Amino acid sequence: MQASPRFLVIGGVAAGASAAARARRLSESAVITLIERGPDVSFANCGLPYYIGGEIKLRDALAVQTPQTLKALLALAVRTSTEAVAIDRPGQRVQLRNLAAGTEEWLPYDKLLLAPGAVPLRPPLPGIDDPRIFTLRSLPDMDRIKAAAFTARHVTVIGAGFIGLEMAEQFIHLSKQVTLVELLDQVLPPLDKPMTALLEDELRKRGVELLLGDGIAGFDGTTGLRCRLASGRGFDTDLVVLAIGVRPDTALARAAGLELGARGHIKVNSFMQTNDPCIYAAGDAIETEDLVTGDTVSVALGGPANRQGRLVADHIYRPDLAKPWPGLLGTAIVRAFDVAAGLTGWTEKRLRAAGRAFRTVTVNDNHHAGYYPGAKPLLLKLLWDPANGRVLGAQATGLAGVDKRLDVISTAIAGALTIDDLAQLELAYAPPFGAAKDIVNLAGFAAGNTRDGLVTPIDALPDDPTVQVLDVRPPGLVQSHPIPRHGVINIPLGALRGRLGELDRSRPVATVCALGKTAYFAARILAQNGFQVSALTGGIRAHFDPRSPAKLPTP
Amino acid sequence: MQASPRFLVIGGVAAGASAAARARRLSESAVITLIERGPDVSFANCGLPYYIGGEIKLRDALAVQTPQTLKALLALAVRTSTEAVAIDRPGQRVQLRNLAAGTEEWLPYDKLLLAPGAVPLRPPLPGIDDPRIFTLRSLPDMDRIKAAAFTARHVTVIGAGFIGLEMAEQFIHLSKQVTLVELLDQVLPPLDKPMTALLEDELRKRGVELLLGDGIAGFDGTTGLRCRLASGRGFDTDLVVLAIGVRPDTALARAAGLELGARGHIKVNSFMQTNDPCIYAAGDAIETEDLVTGDTVSVALGGPANRQGRLVADHIYRPDLAKPWPGLLGTAIVRAFDVAAGLTGWTEKRLRAAGRAFRTVTVNDNHHAGYYPGAKPLLLKLLWDPANGRVLGAQATGLAGVDKRLDVISTAIAGALTIDDLAQLELAYAPPFGAAKDIVNLAGFAAGNTRDGLVTPIDALPDDPTVQVLDVRPPGLVQSHPIPRHGVINIPLGALRGRLGELDRSRPVATVCALGKTAYFAARILAQNGFQVSALTGGIRAHFDPRSPAKLPTP
Repeated sequence: MQASPRFLVIGGVAAGASAAARARRLSESAVITLIERGPDVSFANCGLPYYIGGEIKLRDALAVQTPQTLKALLALAVRTSTEAVAIDRPGQRVQLRNLAAGTEEWLPYDKLLLAPGAVPLRPPLPGIDDPRIFTLRSLPDMDRIKAAAFTARHVTVIGAGFIGLEMAEQFIHLSKQVTLVELLDQVLPPLDKPMTALLEDELRKRGVELLLGDGIAGFDGTTGLRCRLASGRGFDTDLVVLAIGVRPDTALARAAGLELGARGHIKVNSFMQTNDPCIYAAGDAIETEDLVTGDTVSVALGGPANRQGRLVADHIYRPDLAKPWPGLLGTAIVRAFDVAAGLTGWTEKRLRAAGRAFRTVTVNDNHHAGYYPGAKPLLLKLLWDPANGRVLGAQATGLAGVDKRLDVISTAIAGALTIDDLAQLELAYAPPFGAAKDIVNLAGFAAGNTRDGLVTPIDALPDDPTVQVLDVRPPGLVQSHPIPRHGVINIPLGALRGRLGELDRSRPVATVCALGKTAYFAARILAQNGFQVSALTGGIRAHFDPRSPAKLPTP
Repeated sequence: MQASPRFLVIGGVAAGASAAARARRLSESAVITLIERGPDVSFANCGLPYYIGGEIKLRDALAVQTPQTLKALLALAVRTSTEAVAIDRPGQRVQLRNLAAGTEEWLPYDKLLLAPGAVPLRPPLPGIDDPRIFTLRSLPDMDRIKAAAFTARHVTVIGAGFIGLEMAEQFIHLSKQVTLVELLDQVLPPLDKPMTALLEDELRKRGVELLLGDGIAGFDGTTGLRCRLASGRGFDTDLVVLAIGVRPDTALARAAGLELGARGHIKVNSFMQTNDPCIYAAGDAIETEDLVTGDTVSVALGGPANRQGRLVADHIYRPDLAKPWPGLLGTAIVRAFDVAAGLTGWTEKRLRAAGRAFRTVTVNDNHHAGYYPGAKPLLLKLLWDPANGRVLGAQATGLAGVDKRLDVISTAIAGALTIDDLAQLELAYAPPFGAAKDIVNLAGFAAGNTRDGLVTPIDALPDDPTVQVLDVRPPGLVQSHPIPRHGVINIPLGALRGRLGELDRSRPVATVCALGKTAYFAARILAQNGFQVSALTGGIRAHFDPRSPAKLPTP
């Protein structure tokens, strides 16, 4: 693109830095300028909680690049602490303000990328301006929280999403008393609630006080710092981190007349161009299409931001070779202590809210062969389109192997694979790494069994008292870990064929077991013996007790 | 299938046990009989080495099922220590011999599954019948090796494939002196040689004596046990494990006139039917199609065997709902001490041997974000079809995350994804689990850059003395870890734009760095400045030193 070498990038972190770096690889002659309001460029913003908690020891580790390295390696002009205050679209120039000197100037561009990111929400609550109430976006934010944490005894995290959970864990590592407040009645709101039970259990176990189903109503900083919740509850704290979400930082784009979406995100085409073809946008500030459905979506995640930035440079400097953005899945993961949880694609709650048809199964297994030492439990929920079997989404939680299964299913969705394809995936198996039938295969099997009418999975035990609830676990397990419900019949699977007479053939049966598999086996026996039967998918572990054992301990 | 309820299964391990179990889920009325020559059914044969080495402590852990549990849970008739000696196809019956009693009888079938597995090769070498020379297939084999290892001081493993490597590791755990002999000049022969360097280094480091490029010629057991190699070399040992491969155990099928492939495997259609539609075959004894190319292939792996067995039952009992076998990728992985290595799909050596067009890149990265503690190095080689960009195969080796990347790429191949799709995969990222640009994305980027002509990757430094070899690492690293070659020019990337005058524009340049990325960056600068340039893919780490550092240690 010899005609348009002046590439101006507003925002120097994930999308912006990626775009500038890729632009330089594609054109040695381009004049590339990177503008960043903050003092740092290209820092590892996903690492900020881990530095606060001391897992990452060296602050410099977070500086992926500095203005100096970007200049040396990429011949970029970098201006930090510089704010873009206006865009003159007809004149193709941006007004910049040096935040230190207060000086202003206009910089011309041939192509402009807006990568302003998103700002943590800070609602106008009473007392919100107390200096002990923090949000986390930048290295200076991180430094302030780390400094404040030094003397704090009690810390409050508002919002149990990805960042809230990471912060709660890190404050526990710093030996703080931690209260985590979440408006919804579950942690990790993007997930379906049953998939968060293990995470919730882990947080409580590690000493995090969870206040779910309650929102922050205000703060009182007159003596100490007091949090007031919507329920009327109040408590004293020393430090508050607000992690209730972000909004796109798009005032500049709005003022320039660029087209925004309903929630203020910049609208772009599949090459990240705004309605002004000379102006691109990428990263947390944009909205784009869902990979599966084409719905308009936005996510604030580093991976997509990096790849969108790269695509912008491709489209500017090698337009014929640029590949359109495929859309977003929103794959995300979080670790809280020993538990990992995450999702890819659609959840049941999103599918329900959108009124879309879906079917779902939940399966338990170990992250690798159970006979090999160190096997850790893993729970996987799969959602698919009943019209064609195509995988719509998945959620996983467990003590190991969560990331791998999310990545496999994310890739499967990208390939438009079906539940039958999942059943046949040929995944790497040696005892330390997997199983001959991986949990992803098992989910495909279970989904196929559901689709083919071999079993009717249920997501909860029915309230209807005419339904016979049949627990098919061994009696010892039934006694040590009972189902919290009256009138449950216990016939272990191995005895079921011989004891069918104990069940009433005129009434439906719901089978239940520890993990869901044995209940399916029992349902097959009953269905073929004329019973109307359903099986609890995911078993007791998915619905009543996330650490419920699969077997009695060997004595 | 009410008309054909008698299902006879020959072989009670992976494919056979899976078929019988699935058959029972589909039909309570079927008469299902499982015949097994050995004393055990449904045991974890992939776990045998780990029990020998003591990682798996309890022998019972390997018994996934027993004849008793199969009877109780699945109402199967199980006959162990029973050999199928003949098939009367017109009469639809199998002659069985009870190996304990010596009695024989005929058992009728409506449908028959042959799941005989594969037998370890035991070539007719001098001295091969020495009782100190073992192969490993069954629990009794395992017990014999474990017992013999108890008194052995020196152990020899012949064959550095998957099982050979596992055995070598386990014998080291037992504090044996271990010699590993391999005919090829690399360990893990299915992989391309450069991908095995780290594994080889790890084995030597842990004390395994590696004799590569040498074959076993015979044994002399007159005084002690002496191994004689093809090279003439000889050494004394106390115990030999032969792990040089397997052959399909298909004498019964051959005698019955079933169609066999060129290497003795049973031919089946995509529902696992042999040329006799009442007789199915599954598992290690069959040949099937390659998922990518449709070539005839066979693999002896537990995952495919299990799923093939399940498919057989589906086709017998619910033929309308059975989904055809999609084909094989041969995804496999092995761990040797701290290193994992594996493959999915096609390798370069297989592609070359088949005369197929391909392109390839090799990329290095960490298994998760480098700024988060514990990041471990990972090497990934990607192969794709230049005609359409479709992924053909991948190999990975490293200290962590190998299984995940193989699984992602296996899934990508199942979805017929291209290198551009890999670049855009949305994989789970939080610092403990991944990176904003995962190594799979990086491989997609690198492949796209190659395809689009941004870089000319080379797999080895050219011998041509007119080529200027340019090392773009920092001088400290060049000094501490030099490239084993004369006349290498060193200009670090950050200084390259200012020092282009030091290079001869009339001569080609080959750039090289630690990991391959910086060499690509340098190649972009040089190409745009008029140089004819290529870049060593995978860097020094992939070609000269598998543990070569990416950076100088921080002082």
